[in-house]
Formats: sequence, C-alpha cells, structure tokens
Amino acid sequence: MGIVLGANSYGKAENRLVRVYRDTPRHEIRDLSVSTSLRGDFDAAHISGDQAKVLPTDTQKNTVYAFAREYGVGQIEDFALTLGRHFVKEIEPVHGARIEVDEYAWDRIEVDGRGHDHSFVRRGQEVRTTMVTVERDGRASVVSGLKDLTLLKSTGSEFRGFLADRYTTLEETRDRIMATSLVARWRYQTAEADWAESHAGVRSILLATFATTHSLALQQTLWEMGRGVLQQHPEVAEVRLSAPNKHHFVVDLSPFGLENPNEVFYAADRPYGLIQASVLRDDTPATDVAWDG
Amino acid sequence: MGIVLGANSYGKAENRLVRVYRDTPRHEIRDLSVSTSLRGDFDAAHISGDQAKVLPTDTQKNTVYAFAREYGVGQIEDFALTLGRHFVKEIEPVHGARIEVDEYAWDRIEVDGRGHDHSFVRRGQEVRTTMVTVERDGRASVVSGLKDLTLLKSTGSEFRGFLADRYTTLEETRDRIMATSLVARWRYQTAEADWAESHAGVRSILLATFATTHSLALQQTLWEMGRGVLQQHPEVAEVRLSAPNKHHFVVDLSPFGLENPNEVFYAADRPYGLIQASVLRDDTPATDVAWDG
Amino acid sequence: MGIVLGANSYGKAENRLVRVYRDTPRHEIRDLSVSTSLRGDFDAAHISGDQAKVLPTDTQKNTVYAFAREYGVGQIEDFALTLGRHFVKEIEPVHGARIEVDEYAWDRIEVDGRGHDHSFVRRGQEVRTTMVTVERDGRASVVSGLKDLTLLKSTGSEFRGFLADRYTTLEETRDRIMATSLVARWRYQTAEADWAESHAGVRSILLATFATTHSLALQQTLWEMGRGVLQQHPEVAEVRLSAPNKHHFVVDLSPFGLENPNEVFYAADRPYGLIQASVLRDDTPATDVAWDG
Amino acid sequence: MGIVLGANSYGKAENRLVRVYRDTPRHEIRDLSVSTSLRGDFDAAHISGDQAKVLPTDTQKNTVYAFAREYGVGQIEDFALTLGRHFVKEIEPVHGARIEVDEYAWDRIEVDGRGHDHSFVRRGQEVRTTMVTVERDGRASVVSGLKDLTLLKSTGSEFRGFLADRYTTLEETRDRIMATSLVARWRYQTAEADWAESHAGVRSILLATFATTHSLALQQTLWEMGRGVLQQHPEVAEVRLSAPNKHHFVVDLSPFGLENPNEVFYAADRPYGLIQASVLRDDTPATDVAWDG
Repeated sequence: MGIVLGANSYGKAENRLVRVYRDTPRHEIRDLSVSTSLRGDFDAAHISGDQAKVLPTDTQKNTVYAFAREYGVGQIEDFALTLGRHFVKEIEPVHGARIEVDEYAWDRIEVDGRGHDHSFVRRGQEVRTTMVTVERDGRASVVSGLKDLTLLKSTGSEFRGFLADRYTTLEETRDRIMATSLVARWRYQTAEADWAESHAGVRSILLATFATTHSLALQQTLWEMGRGVLQQHPEVAEVRLSAPNKHHFVVDLSPFGLENPNEVFYAADRPYGLIQASVLRDDTPATDVAWDG
Repeated sequence: MGIVLGANSYGKAENRLVRVYRDTPRHEIRDLSVSTSLRGDFDAAHISGDQAKVLPTDTQKNTVYAFAREYGVGQIEDFALTLGRHFVKEIEPVHGARIEVDEYAWDRIEVDGRGHDHSFVRRGQEVRTTMVTVERDGRASVVSGLKDLTLLKSTGSEFRGFLADRYTTLEETRDRIMATSLVARWRYQTAEADWAESHAGVRSILLATFATTHSLALQQTLWEMGRGVLQQHPEVAEVRLSAPNKHHFVVDLSPFGLENPNEVFYAADRPYGLIQASVLRDDTPATDVAWDG
Repeated sequence: MGIVLGANSYGKAENRLVRVYRDTPRHEIRDLSVSTSLRGDFDAAHISGDQAKVLPTDTQKNTVYAFAREYGVGQIEDFALTLGRHFVKEIEPVHGARIEVDEYAWDRIEVDGRGHDHSFVRRGQEVRTTMVTVERDGRASVVSGLKDLTLLKSTGSEFRGFLADRYTTLEETRDRIMATSLVARWRYQTAEADWAESHAGVRSILLATFATTHSLALQQTLWEMGRGVLQQHPEVAEVRLSAPNKHHFVVDLSPFGLENPNEVFYAADRPYGLIQASVLRDDTPATDVAWDG
Repeated sequence: MGIVLGANSYGKAENRLVRVYRDTPRHEIRDLSVSTSLRGDFDAAHISGDQAKVLPTDTQKNTVYAFAREYGVGQIEDFALTLGRHFVKEIEPVHGARIEVDEYAWDRIEVDGRGHDHSFVRRGQEVRTTMVTVERDGRASVVSGLKDLTLLKSTGSEFRGFLADRYTTLEETRDRIMATSLVARWRYQTAEADWAESHAGVRSILLATFATTHSLALQQTLWEMGRGVLQQHPEVAEVRLSAPNKHHFVVDLSPFGLENPNEVFYAADRPYGLIQASVLRDDTPATDVAWDG
C-alpha cells in the first residue's frame, strides 16, 4: 500500500477587475471578480517541491488583467473561455482550466432624467456568474447563473399534507410568506451562444415563474422554474437551483389583544430550509464536470 | 474618590420586521430592522441588580411588532417617533429613547411588463435609515439617511497639488476612478416633514451632485453634495457624509507590451481612504444629540 | 425529449444548538451548528406539489434538538450518525441523509489559576467539522475536518524555479511569509473510530508538519501534511486540503531610505492563491460520496 | 444664513501590517490593522478643492509601514502615540490625529511540546484595540480595549423582578444562559503606562468578574466588571462596556415527551439585547474626546 496524490488544482481567486470602455465620452464599465484554477501535471510540485511545471498564480492574475486590455471583457462567458483556452493551449503542463467569473451590475446615475455619461451606481445585490471548464482536447463546458437574487411572495404559498412523525409540530398553512435568496446555475449545450440574451431570458423566466406559480412547496416552485427555462431555452441542458427557505414567522400578537391576519412577520436568520434541485433534459448526456462550485 | 455609573442604555437591537399590507389583492410590503435603546433611571439595575425599573428588551421587541400591527409602519421616521414617544411617555423610568430603523427596498417582480401583485425582488444594496431620539420633555430629533450606496465615476476626478513630505510617493493624477460606498445622514430641523418626499429629494441631489461635480478631491465632492442638499431642502439642518475612498489602481501592463490608458483597474479592498465631513447651516443651534451611530 | 427532475435534496441548515451538561456543578458545554439534508422519493413533491412523502424541515430541526436531549451530543461524528441513521431508517421515503456538524470550542474562564465551573470563553476561530452520509442500505461515510485554522510561517518558505511565460513578472524568492486559513477534511475508512483522539491526532500532525516542513511551495506543504496524516492514522483513507495562499507582500521602503529585510509586510485580502489537493491511499476504493461540501 | 463646513476628518483605514522580528532564529510576529484620521485646516480642500494642505492618505499609509521599520511596533499604544505625534508635529495643517490599532494575537505552533521558532497559529477571535488621540498642544488620550471576546455562563444568571407593561410576556427566570460578545474600552489617566501589563490585568478582571458574579442582569454584571477594573487599576479613568445579550432559548421538548431542565438551547442570532454602560471615577475630568469609535 502506498500514499498517492489525488485530485489537485491551483489558481488565483477573486481577481477584482474593473474595465472601463472610454472610446466615446459615454463610458461603459464592467466590474468582475475572476478566479482561475488549473489542473495538470503537477505531481512533482507536490511531491518533490519542483515547480518547473507550475505557472505562478501571480502570472494567472497578470493574464486576467492583460487579457482585459488585449481582448476586452465582452460577455463573461467569452472572457472565461478565452482565458481557459489560453491556459490549456499555451501552458503545456495544464490539462484543464476552470475559470469562474462573478459580475456586479451598475446603472448610470440619473441626472435630469438621463443616464450620466461616466457616473454609475451599483444596481443591486444580484450577481451574474459563470463557470467555464476547458479540457486539453478543447472541449469546453459553460455553466452560467446568478446568485444573491432575493425574492419574496407575500401570499400564494401553501405547505400542507406533509409527512408527520413523532417530532412533527409544524401546522399546515394555506397562506404563508415564501422568501429565498436564489442561486441558479444552468449548463449550456454548447460553448457558443448569445450569452447576454440567454442570461436575460433565463433570469426573466425564473422571476416570472416564481411570481406566478401558486406554490404548494418550495420544491414545486423550483421545479416549475427549472422546467420553464428548459422549455423556452433549447440551448440549456440543465438547471440547478439552490434556494434557502428564509422563514418569515407570523408574530403571535394575541397576548396584546391583537389579531395578526398574516400582516406582521418576524424574519428569521437561522436555521433556514435549504432546497436544492436539478431539472434537466432526459437526453442530456451525463457530464463529468463538477459544476456546483 | 468613588466609582460611579456613567452613561448607560439598553434595548433590543435588529428586530427584523416584515409588514404586509393586504387590504387589496395588490399587496405592499415593508422590510425593516428596528433597534430600540432606552436611557433613564437605571442605576439600581446596575448597582444592586434591582430590575424593578427595567422594561425587558423582550418587551421592547414585542412593542415593535405590536405597533406594526396597531399603527402600521408608515414612513420609518414616523414609526420610530411613535415608538420613541411611547417608551418615554408610558414607561416612567425612561428619560430618553433612541429608535433606529433600517429599511430594505423591494420592487415588484415584472411579469408581462407589469409589476406583480404579491411577488417582489430586493431592489439593491442601498439601505434607508433613520435614527430618532425622543427626550422626556417631548423634544424629538430626527436624523435620516442612507447607507451602502455604492457609486463610481470612471472619469472627472483629479487629485493634484497636495502636500508632500518625506513619506509621499503618490503621483498626481488628472484622471482617476473615484468610487465610494456612501453613508449619508441628515438632521431635520423638525420632527414633522414629508419624510418620503424629503428622502427622495435629498437622495437625488446626492447622486446628481456626485455625478456632475468635476472632482478635485473626494472632500470637495462631499462638500458639494452636502451644500446642494442644504440649498434645496430648508427642512434639513445638517448633512453628515462618510465616504470610503475605494481605490481603483491602474494596472501596469507595460511588462506585457501593453498600454493601459485608464482602462483596466484593480479594485482594492484595504486599506481605503476614509473621508468624513459635516455640512451645516451657520444658524443651526448646536445639538446635544449624538447622531452618528 | 422530456424534462425530468435530477438530483435533489432538502433539509434544515444551521440549527444552532448549545447543549449543557449539568449533572455536576462542573458544567460542560457543546456548541454546534447542525445541518440536515435528505435525498429520496421526492419526485411528487416537486412535480405535482404533493408533500405526502416530505418530512418538514421543521421536523428535522425538532429532531436535532430532541436527540441532543435524548442521546446527548457526544462526539459530533456519532451525533451525526445517529441523526442520519434515524432519518434513513424511520422515514420511509428517505434514501439517504447527509448531516453536517460544525463545532465551536470553548475554554473555561480561568479564575485564580483554575478553570471556572460554569463560565466559558470561546477558544478561537477554528471550527471542527464533520459530514456524515448514511445510505438506505446502512452504509455510512464519515468525513471529518477542521476549517478557519489560520497559520503563518515567518520564514522557511521559498518559491523558485517556476514556469514562466510572457505574463510572468513574479520574482523568485528564497524567503517569504507563507500564510493560510486551512480547510482540511479527511475521510475515515470506517464509521467507528475514537473520533476525539483521531481528530486531535490529525490536527496535531497538520500543524506540526506545516511548522517543520521547509516549504518549496504551498503544494509541497499540503502534500507533506496529507502524507503525514495517512502515515500515522490507518483509520483515515483520504485527506483533502484547501488552502488559500494569503499573500504577505514585503513593503518597498527604499523611497524613504529604509531597508526592509523581510520585516515589514502588507497583508493583502484579494486576490489570493487557492491551492487544493487530495492525498490518499492507492488501495482506497473510489467513493461515490461527494464530500467536499 | 449661510452654509458652512462642520467637523471633518480624513485618513487611511485598515492598513494591514505584519511586522516580523527576526534578529534571532526565534522570530516574533505582530499582526495589526492601523487606521489614521486627521483633523485640521482643511476648509480649502473641501470648499475650493485646493489640496495644498492635504497630506495624502497614501502618505499616511506609507508612514505606518515606514514607522513599523524605523521604530518597531512595540505596544500598540506606543505605536499609535508615535504616529499621532508625528502627524500633529510634522504636518503643519494637522490639528489633531486619531490613530486606531487592532491587534490580532498569534501563538507559536507546538511541536514536540515546544513552541516553534517561526510558525504560528492565530490565537482566537478576540482583538486587542487602542484608539489614541493627539492634539496640537501635545495632549494625548489613550483608550485601549478589546472586542469580539465571546463569553458564556451556563448558570449563575437570573432575570427577575422587572417592570412589566401590557406588552410584557417574558417570564421570570432564576437560571438562564448568559452569553455575550464583549466590547470593552478603557480610558487611561495618562499617556504613559505599562500597556501590556495593564491590558492583561484589565482583561483578567473582566473575565474573572464575568465568571464569578452571580448575575441578576447583564447590567449588573457589566457594572461589576467596570468597578473591578477601576478598583485595581488606578491608571484607568473610565471603562465603557458594550455587550450584546446573545439569547439562548430553552427548547420546548414537551411535545416529544421530553423534559428540558436547561440542557438544550437554541442560540439565536437576532434580535439581541444590547447593553451599554460606562463606569468611571467621580473625580474624572470630563473628556472632550469622543472615544467610542
């Protein structure tokens, strides 16, 4: 019996990059966090400490910033693909690269009813994400998504007819608040798509389905959200949703002689439910790519 | 020489309250964090452990939730005033109450071009704040504001002509990114105002002034922002601004044979500049109210 | 082509549990965060909204607290196994359960040179972890670990002889600070072990190996740490280490006429290197259990 | 009526500094976050944008790192005094300087029963703090402290006999968990003291008093803690304590046929009580220095 090196990777995480496009007085800005992670022939780096095949993480960082100048940022999926292909193609010991990009959205500051040319305000908490994996043979996987999208329905949510055992005290409800901070990731069938349009379309379906589904459980809402995306976006192979059930408890005001017909709620921090589901096409080939971060 | 009890206060912090208005199918929601803090005749509670004059923080929490039902939330300034006046008037040992409210904004989810009746999405990071202090004699002070408003100008910002000593290495610049995460607080002249309109107006001036001021330093921008508010809002006595200078450094791409004409930036976390200034009317009576949190 | 439900799970996350043992005046306390996650026959819950097979997450929470009373907490691995086996055995639709427990350590407050009977102070940032998976057939997997263990070597760390490309600017160094915030997870060969002794032993090897290894790269240090554990702990099948390289940069003081022979450092936040490696036995059967959280 | 500039200050916040002492093979390390804040003749910087009197925050940062080399770090109080006096004395427009330092503690990693020469592990969450203010006339104020010191008593804490109104539902208790995350600050009578010894002594009294006081309320515990410090440390003029009451609720296990004699608790996040008190000498001259951060 021996001891061996198993799976390993290394890279530079959370390179904070702001790219300004200033070819005209009306600037554009892009605000990213870029993480690189390389797999490959790195046994010697571990076992004998020989770094001859190791491209420093510092170099990976430099590459991110240099590429932002040379190639521009464009859609984050394309930026990640360009970076991933570079590392796999140009750096011989690298067998696979995973590039993750988070993008933070900005709006123009409104002045006299018009967006300002070069002054911006952060739009919200929501983050657009992508995780691109490029293999040595050129295969690429693109998993895009969003996170920190906080949603709430003030009605249209039930939870009834559930299984009970001796530890069950929860009462059934036909009307509750349902709230979550959604993490959604969808795997594309290809490495070429209209990423911006696709992202906007998927996001819109996720939101609208959350809003319009009369929910019997968060599980059901997630299923409908995933199904809606797949029905309308043939370029998407699979949708994975991770949704904390952020509990809002009706406050008992009866000690004060007050009714509380679902009007006053206490928003709890912990614990929270955590519901996770994948929705996919039944002809989707299995993927060997870990894609849930 | 003896040892005495000095300033003291107690309360319940961060009561997370969601209030749903559901009188019609088109719901409204309000999402608050409410903190109470009471001053008064509490020497015995400390020195002999006698709690006879101490209204429990648990009761303060109950009061917050009960008042949300009895009186509704309305504008956060009014909700805070109602709570503060209650504690000072009804609880004999209480000599002063400070109520702080943070409000998180939500938008309706758009479905088919129209905001949904009861489904919502968190708007952004920005938080609307108020801090109300009520004294035993009925005097009330209202300091409203906002925080976590993240702003960025991609040009229109200089920093030159500064003082240099032997530790100065910074180069002058005629063009840099200026970014901040603004905390603004403004003290009202009175305890009665159109809070919503005033808040929207002040916010709009802060944003527009940030956008349109050609900045010679963050200090100057803050001054102009505060001045703009006071010029147009006679109900405001003083504006206090606290602004981290969130540094964005131009990345040196020359080792890679690339120019970088203010296009690719590294967004740093720490350290950051921290600029703080008050702008006020010269006939403003001094306040004995600590109002910067 | 159809759309189908893929992998899914649900549970209650971050149940914060403090258990006091007070059979004698010398109390013991245990401070845990417990998360449950169930897999099973939950298609109907998603697709038709039928919750008949769904044990509420609220019930899972109740079970955690009730078991802390009925069975005590003991070692977190045993507590997690007890919970996991309960859900799989007692709740028919459940096919698999994953229980994660984080434990926060406390020391007795020292009074007159002796630990106090019932007063405690949080020990540190380090968190002891376990992730237990129980399958329907009774198989159980135990992956224990620690996280937030912050380590630093002020010398004894080199980084030289690395691969360079056109984006490489990093200079070689024979002496640098190496710092990390370690996440370590190790998979046990069995579901029965002296968990406390094993955890203490593994932790001790990780720390001592970090300290005494003259490091040619963080990769090499991780390898030696993992190897050391496997050599001395036959009950462990695999070790996975995730280590941010928390960069400490030598500050250039030459503009001020000062040398800086590795004495004054700037500790950076982002970006950071991220090095991840598994070290395992070559006769370890492959596991189908995802175990890196 | 005119609009004028009020109180203002600027500086560089959170300069993360690690200082290694390596004169012998047995290294020492010091890990600090240093924030500078200057007041003075900065009207022009705001009103006309003239920066001629403004020493850049970048220079302040450089000064922190250079001084760590030139003068060493020593006790954080002395380091802060040295920095503050420098800015006030050497930079003509500066009328006052406030220097805040947080220090993170490290232990040597134990190897074969002995602390390693150059390998360290972060000790805990607790942070040692100081806030030093230096005025133009040379007066200096030193307020030292600690924060993030998490304490818990599993018994020896009551809460009874409190004031009740119509919103009171809390039941009296003769035995509860009392837990807090303490922030303590104490103002010294002078700017010269044995800072290390004084800090250790004060900390020890705070801990022991928390442990040994049979508590009738958190207010009473804080008073005893402050009083104990002043009784034994004549160099201290005033102690300010800010203590969240981190609620631990006894879980109702009766639905499951289980008693719960204060053994199983739910540790809540929010809301929390917040108790703040100052304890001081009755002959302490009033201070015009804001010292609570």
